[in-house]
Amino acid sequence: MPRIVRIDVADLRFPTSRALDGSDAMNPDPDYSAAYATVHTDADDGLAGNGFTFTIGRGNELCVAAIEALAPLLVGREVSGVLDDLGETWRILTRDSQLRWVGPEKGVVHLATAAVVNAVWDLRAKRDGKPLWQLLADMSPEELVACLDLRYVTDALTPDEAREILATHRPRRDEREAALRAGGLPAYTTSTGWIGYPDEAVSELCREAVAAGWTHMKMKVGGEPAADARRAALIREAIGDDRVLLMDANQVWDVEQAIARTQELAVFDPLWMEEPTSPDDVLGHARIARAIEPIGVATGEHVHNRVMFKQLLQADAIRYCQVDATRLGGINEALAVVLMAAKHGVTVCPHAGGVGLCENVQHLSLWDAIAVAPDVTDRVVEYVDHLHEHFVDPVRIRDAAYVVPTAPGASADLHPETFARFAFPAGSEWR
Amino acid sequence: MPRIVRIDVADLRFPTSRALDGSDAMNPDPDYSAAYATVHTDADDGLAGNGFTFTIGRGNELCVAAIEALAPLLVGREVSGVLDDLGETWRILTRDSQLRWVGPEKGVVHLATAAVVNAVWDLRAKRDGKPLWQLLADMSPEELVACLDLRYVTDALTPDEAREILATHRPRRDEREAALRAGGLPAYTTSTGWIGYPDEAVSELCREAVAAGWTHMKMKVGGEPAADARRAALIREAIGDDRVLLMDANQVWDVEQAIARTQELAVFDPLWMEEPTSPDDVLGHARIARAIEPIGVATGEHVHNRVMFKQLLQADAIRYCQVDATRLGGINEALAVVLMAAKHGVTVCPHAGGVGLCENVQHLSLWDAIAVAPDVTDRVVEYVDHLHEHFVDPVRIRDAAYVVPTAPGASADLHPETFARFAFPAGSEWR
Repeated sequence: MPRIVRIDVADLRFPTSRALDGSDAMNPDPDYSAAYATVHTDADDGLAGNGFTFTIGRGNELCVAAIEALAPLLVGREVSGVLDDLGETWRILTRDSQLRWVGPEKGVVHLATAAVVNAVWDLRAKRDGKPLWQLLADMSPEELVACLDLRYVTDALTPDEAREILATHRPRRDEREAALRAGGLPAYTTSTGWIGYPDEAVSELCREAVAAGWTHMKMKVGGEPAADARRAALIREAIGDDRVLLMDANQVWDVEQAIARTQELAVFDPLWMEEPTSPDDVLGHARIARAIEPIGVATGEHVHNRVMFKQLLQADAIRYCQVDATRLGGINEALAVVLMAAKHGVTVCPHAGGVGLCENVQHLSLWDAIAVAPDVTDRVVEYVDHLHEHFVDPVRIRDAAYVVPTAPGASADLHPETFARFAFPAGSEWR
Repeated sequence: MPRIVRIDVADLRFPTSRALDGSDAMNPDPDYSAAYATVHTDADDGLAGNGFTFTIGRGNELCVAAIEALAPLLVGREVSGVLDDLGETWRILTRDSQLRWVGPEKGVVHLATAAVVNAVWDLRAKRDGKPLWQLLADMSPEELVACLDLRYVTDALTPDEAREILATHRPRRDEREAALRAGGLPAYTTSTGWIGYPDEAVSELCREAVAAGWTHMKMKVGGEPAADARRAALIREAIGDDRVLLMDANQVWDVEQAIARTQELAVFDPLWMEEPTSPDDVLGHARIARAIEPIGVATGEHVHNRVMFKQLLQADAIRYCQVDATRLGGINEALAVVLMAAKHGVTVCPHAGGVGLCENVQHLSLWDAIAVAPDVTDRVVEYVDHLHEHFVDPVRIRDAAYVVPTAPGASADLHPETFARFAFPAGSEWR
């Protein structure tokens, strides 16, 4: 029986801070990075599974070390056991009692869990010859629910409820898939409003985005109030009143401040205010949500596990759930969050950008749109136009929508040159 | 001007799993460990600051690596700047925007922050020639509040409110200190009921504890219901009806299960149920708290930052706040949590045990008892009788109370032999 023989890890960093790409009020100079895991087996098929977690530079080495700490939990196991019981695989990776102490299910060790878990799913999808979204959408409700770990969230979602949600839209599966293949997965762009970009660049990027057909644009706020207002006015002017403006404060405010600052910016008519305060503050988000209506609260890229999302949903603290399957412990946990959001009537608009997050998240959103979402007209997936050139099967955007990917796997494979160039600190870009 | 010249780090692990010391329902075989930091300066005084974070084995190397990632933030800085503005030092260590991404303020990177922060406080206390508790108790309300970072919690505690709490008991400072020096700091013992110990050992340990004057004993629950009930009956019989029984489930239950299981165990009259579910579940704890009254909910050893404690207090989810200054980002954050608990009328009974946590926590509780607590009669600090022999100035227990320590510093210094023997993996105990 073929076994998992080793998990290779790479510390990849891209010097995005040089041009202030990705800059915001909390993260002025990110170097988009990936702690990248490759699961190797001794099977004849020659397939390897790739997965990663996303960081912004320093600290990526900690995620690399954590992947190395997790690897012995899988190495030596039979491939079929690991790939055919992905629920159990997730539990194996998250329930080592000693490693659990340095989480549990949060921070470095959980980011690393995502890399390994997503690599295993990539391998499973490649073995089955399907893109990940299709593997998920083809699963029966029973098979899908068996991949979930609902520990600590059974008060919000039982296995029966999860199966019921999945069964609801099952009859429309083919029709939904055909619509997505024809029209793509609606997206919004964050490439227009990084906080470190000069005003003229922002205006120009917005006009370009409008010309390219984008209908939803996101800007970064949380700087000086006057600067935020000036940039919001520029952007609103460039995109017009009919397009949707999204705002993102990247956690810089306390609760009272978030309310006051959002109310000041309400004149620019944003659909949502993203990350208004600490990602850990469920009650704070709930308070902000009540105070800033009709503007919605969005958060998720730093919401570290299903227990936190459960509470954000129970407390009516968010209207937009920005799930991130590399911040959560991989695709298994993201599936549970999407199902909980569906039960609570909250719209899933995943976090993307960084490096590889668009490639990752399109699969989750396609599954949501086919198998879970009651209505897909209000869903937009984040899109950022950085670093796609490193991927073997990069995302493609057509008419402001993700084109449905067809290659087997989870779209995580990188070109070999990327490792040679961006490995930290030995790659040519960093030497 | 003297500067910080380097921070040394050691990976220390003690093979406690061999005797099932410290075993509970979630952690069946912990190897108590410390990621241990020593801050060196080029000052003439020859002083070094020691601090650590506590883990239970695998993953300790991740905290070691994270301390190494934090070290450059302090190395090269003037000692006086670091020691005399401890609020700013905390912010320097927690606001590196790239490292923040892999937290923020949680998991591996926050555990490592605690080690470095506590080492700096140890150095400050040694420089001032005072035990840490006295350094804290001698600070004016203004000085103490300048050490806090209230970001994200100003909706629960403003600097003015913190100063007001501290000013309230200032006139009784000397009287309170004298009482503690005479009678010690009341404690409870957890050494009686580890889940891996056989029944006879548990009964015998309980009888010994009664004979030694202990009035509060803690047992581990969360195993098979019948086994929990059998052991609770044994312990209640051994300690009698007049002593206080505490129960600890170590996060093994979901919310509904925690309620049902606690209600089953209510017949044994526990004062509190500790860690009934996920440490992240504020709303779950609130629900459990309402359902299990008059039994109180206790939690804290896995509550990762002040934002989480803020919510547990705002939601009336806990009656006992088990703050841990190595899970939080060191003493600065623990001070803020103790002050928030005081404002909300919640009793602070810190988590201890492990390795060095008793030595660490006694300082925090002495400060609480002198400067913050409205009433100290209901406060008990955890005590576990393991691994104190490794410390230069170990805690001393007399009549079920901690004897007030008098040596300068934070009681974190270890004997040199401990490094030689328990360094992992090169120490003699692990080779």
